[in-house]
Amino acid sequence: MKLLEDRIIKDGKVIGNKILKVDSFLNHQIDVELFNEMGKEFKEIFKNDTITKILTIESSGIALACIAAQYFKVPVVFAKKHEATNLDQDTYESAVYSFTKDKHYKIRVAKSYISKSDKILIIDDFLANGNAATGLADIVSQAEAKLVGVGIVIEKGFQNGRRVLEEKGIRVESLAIVDSMNEGQLKFK
Amino acid sequence: MKLLEDRIIKDGKVIGNKILKVDSFLNHQIDVELFNEMGKEFKEIFKNDTITKILTIESSGIALACIAAQYFKVPVVFAKKHEATNLDQDTYESAVYSFTKDKHYKIRVAKSYISKSDKILIIDDFLANGNAATGLADIVSQAEAKLVGVGIVIEKGFQNGRRVLEEKGIRVESLAIVDSMNEGQLKFK
Repeated sequence: MKLLEDRIIKDGKVIGNKILKVDSFLNHQIDVELFNEMGKEFKEIFKNDTITKILTIESSGIALACIAAQYFKVPVVFAKKHEATNLDQDTYESAVYSFTKDKHYKIRVAKSYISKSDKILIIDDFLANGNAATGLADIVSQAEAKLVGVGIVIEKGFQNGRRVLEEKGIRVESLAIVDSMNEGQLKFK
Repeated sequence: MKLLEDRIIKDGKVIGNKILKVDSFLNHQIDVELFNEMGKEFKEIFKNDTITKILTIESSGIALACIAAQYFKVPVVFAKKHEATNLDQDTYESAVYSFTKDKHYKIRVAKSYISKSDKILIIDDFLANGNAATGLADIVSQAEAKLVGVGIVIEKGFQNGRRVLEEKGIRVESLAIVDSMNEGQLKFK
């Protein structure tokens, strides 16, 4: 998606060879107009698929999931990764490994909010090693719902997230794929 | 807002005299259509005010802040309350006391995303003791920006959040004010 790639080039900051900082428009400050264009693009990509619910994970997936949901006219469910006093006891759970923190954390979705008949689109901001998306896909599978695909804003094409997901037969659609960012130079696929 | 009050009565669950569980449409599963109506309502309430940015706090404030921002045509900034590897070192910080966890946590906003000339609307899902809103207002004040008001989805009118904020001269606008929920019976103001 050219609009997004241009924005990443303009406002993204590359730190080292692995960190891409886009918090001026994606995950701290949110450019809601850009998010609307990204939401429309996901709708265009999945226009021939039936989607009944969008699943994401707190915190930074929530914004795009909600904006995109307007074009799909479906509700959003976000998996909790932090302790929440009000969450049902009856949840689907999965363990997600965090590379940055070198530990597993638990993600949870109340069973009432995903049913067998749901056709789920997973949306998240980044795809790197695919751990968060794999955890969300695991929850969809526990609920025996159908996983239509995974929609990602920025995929790090030089990490193995796509391979991990595709080997499980999961469709991956990314709006921008960064192939390399050596020496601060971004290259898109 | 009648649509919201009706929905709280239909789908909210009162636990004891203090907990109102609305995770089927507000803070776990999100009814994006309802959020659009709430966003329009906030725009109507603040139609005579200039707003340049909406400020909220992760996680459950993000969804409404983004949907509402579409009507104000402004960006959203969400304060981080969890450790984030990618956050700038140069941040405004405030300490927020959590009653449920009986401890303080830190909220942070990168200095680049609020400036002196900003006119800020704070949006959050719940107002109880006003601690989160007070922390956000403190950050607006550190940035020397103007705080136009605080927009809340559900205010617990039997707790002192409104009083705390109004004593600081802050305008509070809530879409639904629960006056009491004794014995599972909800009463709105």
